Amino acid sequence: MSETSPHFIENKLLEMKKGAGTHSPSIASIRSKIPELEISVDACFLSNPYATDLFMQSMQEDLIDTGKLRDVLEFYPTHNSGLAEVIGPQLGVDSKNIFVANGAIEIIQAVLHRFVRGSVVLSIPTFSSYYEFAPEGVKPVFYELSKENDFALDVSDYVKFVRENGAGAAILINPNNPTGTYLTQVQVGELLEELQDLSVVIIDESFIHFASEGDDTIPSVGKLISKYPNLVVIKSMSKDFGIAGVRAGYGILSSDRVAELLENGYLWNSSGLAEYFFRLYAQEDFQNKYGQVRQRYINEMKKFGEELGAINGIRVYPSQANFYLCEIENGMSADDFFIAMLSRFGVYVRTCTDKIGLEKGAFVRIACRTEVENAKIIEAVKAVVGSSN
Amino acid sequence: MSETSPHFIENKLLEMKKGAGTHSPSIASIRSKIPELEISVDACFLSNPYATDLFMQSMQEDLIDTGKLRDVLEFYPTHNSGLAEVIGPQLGVDSKNIFVANGAIEIIQAVLHRFVRGSVVLSIPTFSSYYEFAPEGVKPVFYELSKENDFALDVSDYVKFVRENGAGAAILINPNNPTGTYLTQVQVGELLEELQDLSVVIIDESFIHFASEGDDTIPSVGKLISKYPNLVVIKSMSKDFGIAGVRAGYGILSSDRVAELLENGYLWNSSGLAEYFFRLYAQEDFQNKYGQVRQRYINEMKKFGEELGAINGIRVYPSQANFYLCEIENGMSADDFFIAMLSRFGVYVRTCTDKIGLEKGAFVRIACRTEVENAKIIEAVKAVVGSSN
Repeated sequence: MSETSPHFIENKLLEMKKGAGTHSPSIASIRSKIPELEISVDACFLSNPYATDLFMQSMQEDLIDTGKLRDVLEFYPTHNSGLAEVIGPQLGVDSKNIFVANGAIEIIQAVLHRFVRGSVVLSIPTFSSYYEFAPEGVKPVFYELSKENDFALDVSDYVKFVRENGAGAAILINPNNPTGTYLTQVQVGELLEELQDLSVVIIDESFIHFASEGDDTIPSVGKLISKYPNLVVIKSMSKDFGIAGVRAGYGILSSDRVAELLENGYLWNSSGLAEYFFRLYAQEDFQNKYGQVRQRYINEMKKFGEELGAINGIRVYPSQANFYLCEIENGMSADDFFIAMLSRFGVYVRTCTDKIGLEKGAFVRIACRTEVENAKIIEAVKAVVGSSN
Repeated sequence: MSETSPHFIENKLLEMKKGAGTHSPSIASIRSKIPELEISVDACFLSNPYATDLFMQSMQEDLIDTGKLRDVLEFYPTHNSGLAEVIGPQLGVDSKNIFVANGAIEIIQAVLHRFVRGSVVLSIPTFSSYYEFAPEGVKPVFYELSKENDFALDVSDYVKFVRENGAGAAILINPNNPTGTYLTQVQVGELLEELQDLSVVIIDESFIHFASEGDDTIPSVGKLISKYPNLVVIKSMSKDFGIAGVRAGYGILSSDRVAELLENGYLWNSSGLAEYFFRLYAQEDFQNKYGQVRQRYINEMKKFGEELGAINGIRVYPSQANFYLCEIENGMSADDFFIAMLSRFGVYVRTCTDKIGLEKGAFVRIACRTEVENAKIIEAVKAVVGSSN
């Protein structure tokens, strides 16, 4: 078999996939290991590319053209509580309730290790770090979302499950990853009302900027911290602002919990560039520009979902996130679909065979990218699903 | 009193200093609160400015001119263990013994919280985070370095103190901050040999690049991890490479401890720019250029120390770090000296009145900066010490 035959690439891909654990190998690592492969679209990567454009342009004007970049890299950034004061007004939340994090993963880890004990209910499928980083003494209990119900979560059934399992904590990603299913602000409010006695209710809103309840408002429940002190809102900035490499996120928690975390460290956990981002985020002018690229991306997501849904042979689940969970219905396995998309069309999608709750079906997650890239994805899906019967 | 009178500025400064706790207010925060003040030299800030020049130049060529900066900011950085593999060969340490950190403070916090229990001996004066971030169940016991002995540490006396206090752990900064005192590699080896039974011996080498035992080698004890599994070497890259805003550091620990930390999180704790720095750090070409700016800075440190030492009215303690601990001997208090230096000459030094172990004397810490800035510092010290009798 020659080194450039399709099977060579397919085998290499399968090998890499197996070695990567529960996180997909990055494009850079695939490129370095299989240089023969031409990757044209990264439909595994969950971020708004137009927001990355906006950030790069702002940084060029504010830091690079002015020479201020050096200050950002040379000096210590502002302390955690100082940055909380910077973003508080934009979030409409008291800065004492804000913990600024080196990416959402830092606050996920801190909360799991410090505030969660005993049984914690997790709806599955979900983001694996929530159970992988559970320390000793924390027992994840899985609440299975059903495919028959489009993976939607029924609040009263969920609450019943929490009670039956005597859980002290609950974790919900909203919109959920990898299903894209969404609970409205009213529904999350009902859940919080019911679960006031739990020690912790985590609502991960890392994809909330892609959800919409009919207007331009971002439907976050962060402000409910004043009513429910057991609420922990977790937010990554990587997806909506397209800046995973900057490592920026935050948590909204009771002021006691924020104070407890800061007493134990996390003094300079944001980099100078993360500080620059948070200061941009606090500016009305930047928010106005961001609002435009957010709306543009949401519109393209909807269009992309409709086009995907019109293809015979795959089922597209309803999503309010910037990706669609798809089930291959023509008999192909998820891994075969993933390999065909990548080796034949250079389109990298996320096979979900390693996701607890999705192992049995042929599920893949396809991210919305730019308008041009989405068109390539649609063409590739049509060809792969159509040709394999 | 007019708003621009010296007393107005002095009072504002004293107020700020009191509000800042055990870390000095940053230049940026002083500038925003006292815009009337002209700061010309930041002799509080401990970093090699020539190394910052080198990093900025490398970044300009590698990332900005090529357009690769976007990739660094848009995508997820390499995982912790991947970056450990990048820097392992340069350190001469197995990557399984390396934990890559979001600044040294992250590994300090992780080790204090996870591996230290009971009494821990700390020589004072020292960096405050080592006792401030000690969690419940960890009891700092202070081993006082004496001014009469130039704050030098006697290994056998220190070991005796550890035994007498039944301590299970010990922490040493080498060279020490804020005294600049230094233990040779042989002395640290003796200490590690004696304290093999302790659960943890932390050697913080954040200033080790400024120390020299007569040749160009950096006198780190990191490689001793293969002999002493209780050793924890902690390293900030902020000082020697002049990039505090990038947030880069690492720890050298037993492979079991590294594995334990990674099982609990810290997956994407380095930013894209920190990854860029670690990849630069691994390159021989960069190391050669860095070696030159390191040597240049060390030479200036020595010259600066001699000039400071020649001034009547202050005593300069021997230092192998990039700063000098100075005692004002003309009757002025440390705070008065700090205020006079800043309000009259725009030179910002670190008063040590808040440092445990230095409260009683008139101690200030003065950082070595560029050649031009050092000359300004010397002139200001001469004028302030000379004029206040």
